Order: sequence, then C-alpha cells, then structure tokens
Amino acid sequence: MNIKEEWIQFIHDLQNDICGALENCDGKAKFIEDEWERPEGGGGKTRVIANGDVVEKGGVNTSVVFGDVTNEMRRQLKIDGAKWFACGLSLVIHPLNPFVPTVHCNYRMFELYNENDEVIDRWFGGGTDLTPYYLFEEDAKHFHQTYKSVCDDFDEHFYPSFKKHCDDYFVNHHRNDERRGIGGIFYDYQRASAEHDVKFWMNFARVCGYTFIDAYIPIVEKRKHMQYNDAHKHWQEIRRGRYVEFNLVHDRGTLFGLKTNGRTESILMSLPPTVRFEYNYQPKFNTPEADLLNLCLHPKDWV
Amino acid sequence: MNIKEEWIQFIHDLQNDICGALENCDGKAKFIEDEWERPEGGGGKTRVIANGDVVEKGGVNTSVVFGDVTNEMRRQLKIDGAKWFACGLSLVIHPLNPFVPTVHCNYRMFELYNENDEVIDRWFGGGTDLTPYYLFEEDAKHFHQTYKSVCDDFDEHFYPSFKKHCDDYFVNHHRNDERRGIGGIFYDYQRASAEHDVKFWMNFARVCGYTFIDAYIPIVEKRKHMQYNDAHKHWQEIRRGRYVEFNLVHDRGTLFGLKTNGRTESILMSLPPTVRFEYNYQPKFNTPEADLLNLCLHPKDWV
Repeated sequence: MNIKEEWIQFIHDLQNDICGALENCDGKAKFIEDEWERPEGGGGKTRVIANGDVVEKGGVNTSVVFGDVTNEMRRQLKIDGAKWFACGLSLVIHPLNPFVPTVHCNYRMFELYNENDEVIDRWFGGGTDLTPYYLFEEDAKHFHQTYKSVCDDFDEHFYPSFKKHCDDYFVNHHRNDERRGIGGIFYDYQRASAEHDVKFWMNFARVCGYTFIDAYIPIVEKRKHMQYNDAHKHWQEIRRGRYVEFNLVHDRGTLFGLKTNGRTESILMSLPPTVRFEYNYQPKFNTPEADLLNLCLHPKDWV
Repeated sequence: MNIKEEWIQFIHDLQNDICGALENCDGKAKFIEDEWERPEGGGGKTRVIANGDVVEKGGVNTSVVFGDVTNEMRRQLKIDGAKWFACGLSLVIHPLNPFVPTVHCNYRMFELYNENDEVIDRWFGGGTDLTPYYLFEEDAKHFHQTYKSVCDDFDEHFYPSFKKHCDDYFVNHHRNDERRGIGGIFYDYQRASAEHDVKFWMNFARVCGYTFIDAYIPIVEKRKHMQYNDAHKHWQEIRRGRYVEFNLVHDRGTLFGLKTNGRTESILMSLPPTVRFEYNYQPKFNTPEADLLNLCLHPKDWV
C-alpha cells in the first residue's frame, strides 16, 4: 500500500471509529451517511447526527478529492504543479447540554504532482480545538494534557508551537481578537524532513486523530447529565453565534470551499443547530459566563 | 446649507421618522440609542429595538464618518483622493411573526476631496429589499409597485435596472444562486451628470428613503396579527440562516466594516435574533415553504 492508499484507509477507519464512539456516548441518535461525488474528481462521505440525547447536531465528514491545479488554486493556495490530491476528515459536534463543550477536529494530507503524475510535494495538517460554554478547569486541563502527552511522544517542541498556532487561528478579529474557545492544537504545511519523515507525520496524524476519543468523550460523559436551565441554553446560543461568525467570516477552509463550488451542505454542517444574535450582549460581571468570555479574550496555559 | 449638511440633515430626519413609524406599528417596544465615536473621525447613532409585539429585533442606524484615504481603501474601494466622507442610514427589521417579512434598507452618500478639501468626486447609493418567509402575492406586488412608482417619477429606466441590480446582489452564490428574498431596488455609484444633477440624486434618495414607510408598514399592519405555529417559526429560522450566510459571506458592506475596524455591534445588528441551521433541510414538495424557496431561486417580475 502506498502513502496515499494508507492515508485514505486511515481516514475512513478513523471516521468509522469516531462515529461509533459518538453513537455509544449519545445512546440514542445514529449517524446517517450521504455519499457524494465531485464532478471534477473524487467525492466524500458526509455523516451527520442530530437530535440525540447528547448531540444536538454534528457531522463527521471525510473526503477524497483530486483534480487539475487551477489558476484559482495557484493564486489562492500559492501552489504549483499539474495535479493535486487531498484527503481528510473534518468533524464538528454541537452538544445539546450547554455544560458539554463543542469540539472540532480536522486531519488532512495534500499531494501535488507533475505532468508525469510524480509526487512533487506533500504536506500534512490538522488539529482539534474545544469550545466550552462554561469552563470546568479539570476538563480544560484534561483536554490539553491529553494532546500535550501525545505531542511530547513525537517531539517536545510540538505542543507549545501547535497550541499557539491554534490560539492564533480560531480568532474573531472583529471582536477584539476573541477566540472561539479554549483552543487545543493546530498544525499545517508539515512536510517530510531529515528529522521527521513521511511515516512520522502519518503516524502523528493517526495518533492525534484517535486521541480525539480519549480527549473528548470523557468530558462528555462527565457533563452530559448535568442539569441546565434556559439561561444556560441562552448563553450557549449566544456563544454559538460567535462560532458562526468565525466560520463564515474568517475560516479559510469554509470560505475556500464555499467560493470554489464545494459541497455546501457538507461544509456548513459545522454551523450550530440553534443560534442567537443579540445586540451588544454582555454577560454580567463576575459570573461563569463572564469568566468564559475572559478566557476567550486571554488564552492561557493549561498544562 | 451645502450638499453635505443637507444630506446629513436628511439622514437624521429619516432616522427619526422611520423609528417613529416602526414604534407606532409595534405598539410596545421602543428604540434605544447608542451614540458612538470613531477614533479616526466621525461616529454614528445606532438605534436598536428588540422583543416588541411586532419587531423581534431591529436596528435603524446612521453614521457620519470621514478621514484620510488609506492604502487599504485605495486597494479595496478603488478610489483615489486625499480625504473622504460618508454618511448614510442602514436598517434591518426582523419581525417576530413569520408572516411578516424582514426588510433591509440603506441610503448613503460618499464624497472624496483633494489636498485642498475640494470635492473631487461624489456618489450616491441605496436601496430597499424584502425577505418574506411566506409569500403573499399582493404584498410582493405592493412593495415592488410602490418603488416602481417612485422610480418612474424620476426616470423610467430606473426601476427595471435597479430591480435587476437588487436581484443580482443579494445572492447566496454558494447555494445555487438562491436570493435571500424577493428583492426590491438597489443602486450604487450614481454621480451627477448632465441629465441628473446632484439635487436630483439627493431628492431621489429622499423620496426612496421615505417610501420605506409606505412600502413596508402596510404589509406589517396586514400580517402582524396572523396566527402562526411552531412549524412556521421553524421555517422562518431556517430562512434566517440564509440571511446570516449572505451577510457574513457575501455582503460587501458587512465584510468591509468588519475587516477595517468598524463598530462590530452596529454592523452585526443586521443578524436575526434566533436562527436555525439544519443539515440539508428541504421543504416538502408543493408547500408554501417550497414556493418561497422557488421564488428565491428564480426571481420574477412583480409589476
């Protein structure tokens, strides 16, 4: 099996295993799958879940897409070559209970080929980030510690660098640089080098990908039965508004997909199920809501 | 009074009169005003209304802003000159009742100056567009006929041209060119000419601006007491999702404001109060919801 085949296999296995873990945790809702084809080459498996006991709305999508390098891609992605290939998994889970955080993760590999179909470039990217509505310090520490341990096994420079990259990326610049959540790890354009070969990056993505289950599911299990009231739900929907703002105004992947004839329904599965926009909403001083907002404005170290 | 002063006076009078008409129509909620200043020059009066008997959320904002022409503006707006001035009114009304349409309108004047503070360019823009959740043909005809009559009094070429401009602008290109509503009129970059002098364009904006009241309020009065159920509200919230998508992904004014340090809360007052995003939501065949969607995909002539 070559690199490409191995990566595709990994992405589909991960999709199956994560969907299984989420269905187990939910206990009621099941994923439904839409398989789609891309006229220009390839396609995807969009798996969505809704109205569960735990998950109000979520998607765990994979795609395997390829084609000729277009001028649009040359300009926007600053890439060169004759053909390209990309395969990845992208997930977003919006829980019903405001004490359970929203989570996003994405792992992908990109290849470029010359006219003779020889690989001329290949890079890896990915990450996982957490968006709580109420902060439980132990949950934040568990999430970050889990990814730090994984990163440290590969390279001790990774966690500090990838944590910062995540804090710097998921930012609503139009709201005083408020982050959409408490971050996690995010890396991009990682290529094979003397120090880290292709197998290293494949393996890093594999371990990070599966770590989603250990990093997220225990938090859900701990919080999913917590009682909440309308005020908690209201705050969750206000914060979900910021999630929408980030995804539609700033997220490079979302905008590139929407503007290059990507499959809109698969891309926008990331949007939360119910959302509220209120003029100049400010949480009251010295409340859990104000604490959360403060954390989004001032990311901190958790481990 | 010079042109600039006359325009500012008109915009503030229009704000007062429209707010008065909307408060009368609502019968319960009142506008609250936030006055703000822009560090680089000028400021605005943001007036918002919420949780009324008729208006669930709305804003009628004015701003009078000016400054030096920046490189960002030269690049993005393709303008030249030393200083600029802009003044306008922008409103969005999101009614509670799904049988009452959402409405947006905006009227503005822009001036450019050379180093000696002499006006070197001046243009006018504006328009009003309607976003119903359920179609009442008589309402759509009333709305379009009202603006057509106004336009025809000025120039018989205006309505067909400005109606088309509106249909071509408020489009979710990422959703098969679905329009956000049933349009209205929209014009931009209108300059004084031998045929139409500055007074003509001032007067056109004035009449269009005040016509908002005649075009919209009678529709609200006719529909505001209609009974609706959860299914109607659900559809309204789905369609509001498309409003969010247009404003955050495509609307030039919103994006320019957010990316150039505009006042975020004033810009995003346009977003609906409660919104729903569901994966691949499709209205059932041969329902009022499907009819509305079809109209958004295929704009028609109303008069």
